[in-house]
Amino acid sequence: MKKLNILVSNDDGIDSPGIYALVHELRKVANVFVVAPDREQSAVGHSLTIYSPLRATKFHRDGEMFGYSVTGTPSDCVKLAISSLCEVRPDIVVSGINHGPNTSINILYSGTVSGATEGMLSGIPSMAVSLDSHDYNSDMTVAAKYASLLAMQIPDMNIPDGTFLNVNVPAVPEEEIKGIRVVHHNKSVWKDKYLKRNDPFGREYFWFSGEYIKSEDNAEADDTALHQNYVTVNPIHYDITNHEYKKQIKNIEELRLGNS
Amino acid sequence: MKKLNILVSNDDGIDSPGIYALVHELRKVANVFVVAPDREQSAVGHSLTIYSPLRATKFHRDGEMFGYSVTGTPSDCVKLAISSLCEVRPDIVVSGINHGPNTSINILYSGTVSGATEGMLSGIPSMAVSLDSHDYNSDMTVAAKYASLLAMQIPDMNIPDGTFLNVNVPAVPEEEIKGIRVVHHNKSVWKDKYLKRNDPFGREYFWFSGEYIKSEDNAEADDTALHQNYVTVNPIHYDITNHEYKKQIKNIEELRLGNS
Repeated sequence: MKKLNILVSNDDGIDSPGIYALVHELRKVANVFVVAPDREQSAVGHSLTIYSPLRATKFHRDGEMFGYSVTGTPSDCVKLAISSLCEVRPDIVVSGINHGPNTSINILYSGTVSGATEGMLSGIPSMAVSLDSHDYNSDMTVAAKYASLLAMQIPDMNIPDGTFLNVNVPAVPEEEIKGIRVVHHNKSVWKDKYLKRNDPFGREYFWFSGEYIKSEDNAEADDTALHQNYVTVNPIHYDITNHEYKKQIKNIEELRLGNS
Repeated sequence: MKKLNILVSNDDGIDSPGIYALVHELRKVANVFVVAPDREQSAVGHSLTIYSPLRATKFHRDGEMFGYSVTGTPSDCVKLAISSLCEVRPDIVVSGINHGPNTSINILYSGTVSGATEGMLSGIPSMAVSLDSHDYNSDMTVAAKYASLLAMQIPDMNIPDGTFLNVNVPAVPEEEIKGIRVVHHNKSVWKDKYLKRNDPFGREYFWFSGEYIKSEDNAEADDTALHQNYVTVNPIHYDITNHEYKKQIKNIEELRLGNS
């Protein structure tokens, strides 16, 4: 069988342990092309660099060319890779492995997920992968193995246009993982709090803090299944119109401006 | 009737004509509190500033306090406003008026829309408003009037939890606007292109370019209706799991790691 061409990006930066573990595992079975941000880009959401130029530099690791380091966001990296840097069009885009889970609607803030979104928008089957731990020293091996297992499955999965996979892996030893679960997303949200402090010159500043409030849901929801030590796979699409409510507000089409 | 308390933000920056026209119009009928970025934040998507502090400074216009200028993104502004700066909890959040349309799934990149998303995530009825013109000198008056008309309607619209309104206004004289249309989003996407150039030192750089490819759809889709001179109202929600496809891939739950 012909080896798959896989484009890999992430949001923790090209020098992070997560992308290294992922690429190491994928290179056993596929041709891997890496284009990733030159520094951490967490919480950049679906940002795009349009008012400044991008630089792409070859990045070496263990004495070998590892991939291209780009002065931009995950979205920039995937767009630039597909349109300009890749010699062959990728069969799959994989973004990750992120330090920290990307679950619930908090994926709206996720650079990792936006990398997979860009792949999908370019018409390429795509997957985001995250580990449920923010610890920089977490073992990424198990997550990398699951990422590879699922990536190899993608060509047979008939992922519909406009849909991609968002994968989260529990941060536990391999034998404690209960299996894979196809999920929807919880409705957990951050309860915002800003710490108000004064700088050394006595001027006020604010710093984002806050608390993650897990919503209750059934065992098919991502936060819930992940907490039960399942690898979660959420097929995401952006059919974001609330079609039901759209029908209910037809009457606003009758509104007219007053003669003010 | 008690005056509504409206929080206004945007992504073009607190000194842009769009937010000025919007606030001017809304202040005729509501209490308006402005918290907006200190500079243009277009294409920041749903970015959040978490690794640096935020500053909020009083910003004056025409000799009066206009609002708070914040060193962050639209998401930062709305989060900071609701949690820390607003004296009363807003009844409504309005983000805009943006220079340039926010239609199709390109709203994923939109700072303007992310401002409304944050309001919604905080449980407040929210609306994003954009004008279909990138011209800095466009007349914002008509768009501001429609924004006000719709904002005053919001308390009676029973917007469901998790849903907000994305409004686009044609850039034509008032009498040429055909009315309001409730829409879903087109599937138009940008065809990516990066210009490859050399800097004055001969080093290569890339700059995002590309072309907006409008998809065909019916008269109830945003790009299409906007082009026909309708004010479009898309009720957006982030129920982004593809539930249909989720059922189809249940079989991947049987996958197991090999003994590699």
